Amino acid sequence: MIEVIGLDGDDTLWHSEQLFVDVQDRFRALLEPHAALDGAALDGRLEAIERQNLRNYGYGVKAFTLSLIETALDVTDGHLPGTAVQEILELGKGLLDHPVQLLDGVLGAVDALTDRYRIMLVTKGDLIHQESKVARSGMADLFWGVEIVSEKDEACYQRVLDRHGIDPATFVMVGNSVRSDVLPLLGIGARAVHIPYHVTWVLEQAEPDPERHDFPVLGSIAELPACIAELDQQEP
Amino acid sequence: MIEVIGLDGDDTLWHSEQLFVDVQDRFRALLEPHAALDGAALDGRLEAIERQNLRNYGYGVKAFTLSLIETALDVTDGHLPGTAVQEILELGKGLLDHPVQLLDGVLGAVDALTDRYRIMLVTKGDLIHQESKVARSGMADLFWGVEIVSEKDEACYQRVLDRHGIDPATFVMVGNSVRSDVLPLLGIGARAVHIPYHVTWVLEQAEPDPERHDFPVLGSIAELPACIAELDQQEP
Repeated sequence: MIEVIGLDGDDTLWHSEQLFVDVQDRFRALLEPHAALDGAALDGRLEAIERQNLRNYGYGVKAFTLSLIETALDVTDGHLPGTAVQEILELGKGLLDHPVQLLDGVLGAVDALTDRYRIMLVTKGDLIHQESKVARSGMADLFWGVEIVSEKDEACYQRVLDRHGIDPATFVMVGNSVRSDVLPLLGIGARAVHIPYHVTWVLEQAEPDPERHDFPVLGSIAELPACIAELDQQEP
Repeated sequence: MIEVIGLDGDDTLWHSEQLFVDVQDRFRALLEPHAALDGAALDGRLEAIERQNLRNYGYGVKAFTLSLIETALDVTDGHLPGTAVQEILELGKGLLDHPVQLLDGVLGAVDALTDRYRIMLVTKGDLIHQESKVARSGMADLFWGVEIVSEKDEACYQRVLDRHGIDPATFVMVGNSVRSDVLPLLGIGARAVHIPYHVTWVLEQAEPDPERHDFPVLGSIAELPACIAELDQQEP
C-alpha cells in the first residue's frame, strides 16, 4: 500500500533548530550593550520581522541573517556599530558552514526503510545550503529523490507528488513540524508521522485538532520502521 | 529531432542584471561619504567578496544583499552608520519586489515554440524569488517544466535531463550567459543558443573557444523560432 516515504531534513534527519537557538542567544548578548529592551522583547521583535520578511525572503540561513541585521538596526534605531553587523554576518556564515550532525538512529532507520520503500527527502530553505547538507550528510545514496521547496503547504506537496506520479494514498511524510510535515499531507489524502524535535521554531508551531487530525507521534526516528510497517497494514 | 527547449529566465525572458547594476550605482553613491576608495576599487572589492561568498551563499538577491553589506563594512573598516546598512537592506528588498518586465518579443517567441516543443525554464538564484518571478511573469502556463537550480554546470544539466528522461541530443538550451547557458550544454552533447543581454555580470563572463564551441548567437529572442527550426534540420 505504501510506496514512497517522504522525509523532512532539518530536525528530522539532522540537527538544525538548536543551531539557530544558539545563534539567537549570541545575538541577544551582542545587542545587550546597544539596545534598551530585554531578551524577550528582542525575540518578539525578531519574530515579527521574520514573519514580515517571509514572503520575500523565504526560509533559510540567508533570510535569517538578513532579518537579524534588520532587527538589530530596528531596536537600536540605527545606532549600531558596524562591527556588530560584521559579527552578525559571521554568525550567519557559521550556520552555513556548520557540520551536518545526524540525529541518533537516523542511518539505521532510513537504511531499513530503503529495503521496501522509495525514500524522498522533502526539505525547505536555501537551495544551495540544503543541497550542501544532503551531500555532507553521507545519505545522498539512500534517497530516491530530493525535493527542495520554498513552502511546505498542500499545493506544494500536491505538485511534488504529481511530478513523480505518486498517489497520495501510497505516500507517508515524516517530520518534526506538525505545520509543515503533517497537516498539509492529511489535507491532500496522504498520511504523516510526527517525530518532535526538542525545540520548535515559533513560526513552525501549530495546534492540530485532535478531532480531525489523526497521526502517529514517535519519540525517535528509531521507531519509524516499525511504525511504517504498521501503517502499511492499515487502510489509508 | 529537437523535443525540449530549455530557457533561461533572468536576462533571457525578463530583465534582471540592469536592476542589479542600478542598485550597485546607488550603493556606490551611498558609500561615497564613508569610504576613501573610488568607484572602480569599490566594484572590485564587491566582486571579490561575491566570489568568496558564492560557495556558501549561492546566487540571487539575498546573497547579493549580504555581500553588499559585507563590502560596505569592509571598505569602511566597520565605521559605517547603521542607517547606511538599513538603506542597503532596502535596496535588496527593492530588487525582490521589483515587477517582472519581459524582454521584447518574449511572449510571441515562446508561444510559437510551444506548438512543436516542450518548454522548460532552467534558472538559478533564490528559490522563492525565482518562483515568484515565474508566477508574476504570466508565462507559467507556457512551461512544461520549471527547474530552479543552484549552479548551471554540466552535472546540474545532466541531472535535470536525467530526471525528465530527456536525451541530450534532443535538447537545446537558450540563454544570455555563455558560461551558464551554453558551454555546459555543449559539454554534455546537447545544443545551445546564445542571446546576449546588453550587460553581463562579471561572474557570468566567459570566453568560448571558437575552435571548439559552435553555437548560434541571436540579436533578439524574436529570432529564436526560426533558429530552432533550422537547428531541427541539422544533425546535433
